[in-house]
Amino acid sequence: MTPVGVIGLGSMGMGVAASLLRAGFAVRAYDVRAEAMEKWSELGGGAASSPAKAAAGAQALIILVLDAAQTEQALFGPNGAAQAMPKGAVVITSSTVAPAFAAELGGRIEKCGLLHIDAPVSGGSVKAAEGQLSIMASGPEVAFERCQKVFAAIAGKVHRVGERSGQGSTVKMINQLLAGVHIAAAAEAMALGIKAGADPQVLFDVIGASAGSSWMFQNRVPHILSGDYTPKSAVNIFVKDLGIVLDAGRKERFPLPLTATAHQMFLSAAAAGLGFEDDAAVVKIFPGIELPK
Amino acid sequence: MTPVGVIGLGSMGMGVAASLLRAGFAVRAYDVRAEAMEKWSELGGGAASSPAKAAAGAQALIILVLDAAQTEQALFGPNGAAQAMPKGAVVITSSTVAPAFAAELGGRIEKCGLLHIDAPVSGGSVKAAEGQLSIMASGPEVAFERCQKVFAAIAGKVHRVGERSGQGSTVKMINQLLAGVHIAAAAEAMALGIKAGADPQVLFDVIGASAGSSWMFQNRVPHILSGDYTPKSAVNIFVKDLGIVLDAGRKERFPLPLTATAHQMFLSAAAAGLGFEDDAAVVKIFPGIELPK
Repeated sequence: MTPVGVIGLGSMGMGVAASLLRAGFAVRAYDVRAEAMEKWSELGGGAASSPAKAAAGAQALIILVLDAAQTEQALFGPNGAAQAMPKGAVVITSSTVAPAFAAELGGRIEKCGLLHIDAPVSGGSVKAAEGQLSIMASGPEVAFERCQKVFAAIAGKVHRVGERSGQGSTVKMINQLLAGVHIAAAAEAMALGIKAGADPQVLFDVIGASAGSSWMFQNRVPHILSGDYTPKSAVNIFVKDLGIVLDAGRKERFPLPLTATAHQMFLSAAAAGLGFEDDAAVVKIFPGIELPK
Repeated sequence: MTPVGVIGLGSMGMGVAASLLRAGFAVRAYDVRAEAMEKWSELGGGAASSPAKAAAGAQALIILVLDAAQTEQALFGPNGAAQAMPKGAVVITSSTVAPAFAAELGGRIEKCGLLHIDAPVSGGSVKAAEGQLSIMASGPEVAFERCQKVFAAIAGKVHRVGERSGQGSTVKMINQLLAGVHIAAAAEAMALGIKAGADPQVLFDVIGASAGSSWMFQNRVPHILSGDYTPKSAVNIFVKDLGIVLDAGRKERFPLPLTATAHQMFLSAAAAGLGFEDDAAVVKIFPGIELPK
């Protein structure tokens, strides 16, 4: 039983930790929230009382927290994981962060005698629970070799996109740019269609089979059709993720007109109090239409 | 051999006319451009010297011209088709036009004792040539019955979206909104990825298999990767089609932030002299990056 650590037991991290447990790893996990730790213990997982304790003796450590600040804290904050791991072990960081942050983090991790895989994930909590995440990963060959079984336990597909930290996060950033714009575009399209008197179900059926379709159109429009905005992924996630894209663009002095517009739409939704609803709730920013209930 | 008329022998109309010919219809076609008429005659098609002559005696007439103004001219201009058709024949209008125009046109066509199918098409010139267009069509049941064999000859799929003129064009308009935004988004995403140092082929491979994908991402990004902007569908088409969407939004007093932004991007491309290049050339509006050649 190879010891593996997990930090962050949110909707994604819990699924990853549970998948590792199912695959026979000795998993020690940590989360700041007591209720997450309780749920994890009920699943039979090993509980750690700090990042350092989750990391101690682990051959691999997966960090799946909210953002860059939490990732930094988990590794280098008080009772941080980095100083507790055996030399040559692999740190897999999977939160969506700025590529520049991931690159810099990689350097710091290497200085501790550890290996880094920059490995943002996609697929949502359902795929995470099934051990079928899609991972966009960059890092040294040897790190991937050491983590082969770990990835087999948690991922349906690992896209190897390079050897340097930051490359995985770059691909993820571009994916999030498109995902966010496509959700906002699906909302705008459905809203205009409803305003123009079209049957929303017909729009979904016809356009879903036409050149106007997108992965997000197919996935999110059913939430609009059923009027169910229970968060699978919340509006606030795209406020954050498109913010990361825009920050990167500004840093590179690069214009991103559609990303900026979509970000404003998610901000409008958040300002209207919809931040914790499903991201498809961005459709509610369009006034004067009656959405399906 | 049922007589059928076709008006407009551009890249789409020529494919439609040829498909009808192959299926055994007696096709008489008209185009204002002599070179199109010449090409059509070489295919063995029957040539008409005016819209009226293409329409005379036809059981069905398909109009596939550039826009609303040309559609109006073909039907009701000098030597127009409407007065030449036998009562009870069906006029199929397939250009992308404003839904309000299609609805009004339907009324005028009915007043002539004819039936109208509002039938915008999608699929591009290749699908048109193969008789495999996708059609978003609305009109009375009896009109569809009379045109069953016509549609079988030209379409892979006919989406029946209602009984009233304007409904087909509404669905097409919403499809074009998404198609245009998705092309511009694919360009913006690839441009930022290249700026950030990612391998464009890796971006295409990974994101094409991820939640950021769209029909247009899959279809247009290869044009960027190969540096081939030979127009399959030109920048100017989306200047026009997103313009139709924005006009409809303004008429309905409805905000369309992403459509407006994408339209500005296509206008930037057109202003830079790229109007007749493939619509994927909208990526060239992003400065300071080196695109694949």
